[in-house]
Amino acid sequence: LHALLVPRQPTDSAFALDIDRRLASKTMPAGALGRLQECAAQLALIEGPSCLRPEGLAGSDAQIIVFAADHGLSAEGVSAYPREVTWQMVLNILHGGAAISVLSRHSGAPLWVANMGVEHRFDPHPQLIDQPVAWGSANCLYGDALTLEQVEQALLTGARILEQCQASQASRWVVFGEMGIGNTSIASLMLAGLLGLSIDPLVGRGTGLEDRQLLRKHVILRAVVARHPQLFAAPSMALGHASGAGRALAVAKSVGGLEILGIAGAMLRSAQLNKAVIVDGFIATAAAVMAIAMQPEVRASMIFSHCSAESGHRQVLQAIKAHPLLDLGLRLGEGSGAALVIPLLSAARKILLEMASFESAAVAQRSAT
Amino acid sequence: LHALLVPRQPTDSAFALDIDRRLASKTMPAGALGRLQECAAQLALIEGPSCLRPEGLAGSDAQIIVFAADHGLSAEGVSAYPREVTWQMVLNILHGGAAISVLSRHSGAPLWVANMGVEHRFDPHPQLIDQPVAWGSANCLYGDALTLEQVEQALLTGARILEQCQASQASRWVVFGEMGIGNTSIASLMLAGLLGLSIDPLVGRGTGLEDRQLLRKHVILRAVVARHPQLFAAPSMALGHASGAGRALAVAKSVGGLEILGIAGAMLRSAQLNKAVIVDGFIATAAAVMAIAMQPEVRASMIFSHCSAESGHRQVLQAIKAHPLLDLGLRLGEGSGAALVIPLLSAARKILLEMASFESAAVAQRSAT
Repeated sequence: LHALLVPRQPTDSAFALDIDRRLASKTMPAGALGRLQECAAQLALIEGPSCLRPEGLAGSDAQIIVFAADHGLSAEGVSAYPREVTWQMVLNILHGGAAISVLSRHSGAPLWVANMGVEHRFDPHPQLIDQPVAWGSANCLYGDALTLEQVEQALLTGARILEQCQASQASRWVVFGEMGIGNTSIASLMLAGLLGLSIDPLVGRGTGLEDRQLLRKHVILRAVVARHPQLFAAPSMALGHASGAGRALAVAKSVGGLEILGIAGAMLRSAQLNKAVIVDGFIATAAAVMAIAMQPEVRASMIFSHCSAESGHRQVLQAIKAHPLLDLGLRLGEGSGAALVIPLLSAARKILLEMASFESAAVAQRSAT
Repeated sequence: LHALLVPRQPTDSAFALDIDRRLASKTMPAGALGRLQECAAQLALIEGPSCLRPEGLAGSDAQIIVFAADHGLSAEGVSAYPREVTWQMVLNILHGGAAISVLSRHSGAPLWVANMGVEHRFDPHPQLIDQPVAWGSANCLYGDALTLEQVEQALLTGARILEQCQASQASRWVVFGEMGIGNTSIASLMLAGLLGLSIDPLVGRGTGLEDRQLLRKHVILRAVVARHPQLFAAPSMALGHASGAGRALAVAKSVGGLEILGIAGAMLRSAQLNKAVIVDGFIATAAAVMAIAMQPEVRASMIFSHCSAESGHRQVLQAIKAHPLLDLGLRLGEGSGAALVIPLLSAARKILLEMASFESAAVAQRSAT
């Protein structure tokens, strides 16, 4: 696990200046493309000089990996949907009918599904990476969701899956999605533990709980929290604190989330390989916070795609000072919100590469003031 | 002009129900795609049943038309850039180096530039529609910017240009952009007049005025307002008021804006032809408000793409109850923000057309509550 926590090489400051100068020379008022040109600069700094060579990379701008797993806690009725929807939706994604399937075709980003621990035996499929760490996680209401070995294996499996997907078809950026009935509950618990936040404001309707069901979800998650006073009653954790990795592993052991841990491991490896991490909604953000808790420098490689309609996402984004690009009331998961920003980010990249400068286009500069 | 104010046929209510049912059957929790599925529904209702036939339209989802003109008021130093930048940027757009050129290639939406009154003689170019109504507008600080005949001709020319572009390459939606040094000033005046708002909060830095220049812009625009007490001191105008069209023409005559009027005319014609109108930033919104003032039902055919960084845009959007899709601090114009949402809207359309239903994908529905 230690190798996964080595930070990437810092960006060359001369290259950063070159990017700033290129953007400033474009035929537009300074800063007129706002967040779009900030993204162009951030993506360039993450990738490094190869970003300026249009032919430098065979493949697409982005790839999409959806990590899937089941959760013992879903036996407690914390989701509006039965547990078998996890494997049914995995098949729907593979068969091209899910939202993320549509958005993958739309954006030209290849799509894989990684089985991290779904309670189902899948037939082989060219887009399925079938490397389960366990047959789901245990019910964290009655004990630890995972062993420490399973936590570490999930992180390392995620990192290895990222490498396999990149070897199969390289991309500049990676979109991480998830599928797992019950996983808003696990994400809420993980975020409460990692960020030292109170659980209640982090509990939302997930796939669409009605009032009575939401009340039940609150009761269940409070009970899980009460089982682990040493993890959840801790003072608000400063991300990047020296004890971050150890504490993060302890939280993950208690509440689980094999797909969330797979994503966290894949995010850490992505950053090491200079691939920008495109973060989706509430659950993917829990994975991002897990990765940041283990290696704070991974934060600089992340682009937060959207603020979800799931209660608590906005608070979590504020806690980690993330400013998402979209705010469209999405709450679907699967990586759908992150996939939706791929064309925006590709546009940002083309602005950097293809726009003329004032000089090259013979356009007059600002008047003297 | 009367023909341009005839509203489009109302949408068939059975078709609207069909669209709702299709979206509700998709393999996702109800409403989980938020604003994206609202856009999918709105676009479908604007286009009508042909939207469900993927092969029904030869051409692209969107086309982009950038309307350009000069403004006599720019002699007063209300812009950070000299007036010749208007024609220089027209050439930059045609030569493929402007932001909108890059975004046109990125989105696959063909791009035209319509010369409505730039102070320059252009050589012919396949993407240039050269139909100027005047050699710029007059300086509205000293008199009317346009004659009533010029206002009407600009509206009708815009409508005709829309027809020509659609005849050349049909599209489902139309993005309207603008180029015209000084046109944030004209847009502020027009919006103040049309909406009955005070001018000061509508005055912004445009292409990037410094503090002293901004102060000058305020002084100049207040002086223009003072010339027309009957137009600007009027009580807040209810959009859609019976006297809307006459009053709108009077405001346009006073302050001008040949490219803004061209866009307004093209928007009205777009709506009649069941083509969704994708509204860009501050100046395009002034054109949208002009069109709404003349024919309130055109509002239903509009999608507001983004909230610009230009002061006043947020207030105007609130005044017309528009909820833009993006809020990325853009303030470039040219239709760039509207072009940026084309891939989002194409994604929305594909969600409606391509996503599986619970039944077709054999995914379990919600548990009973």
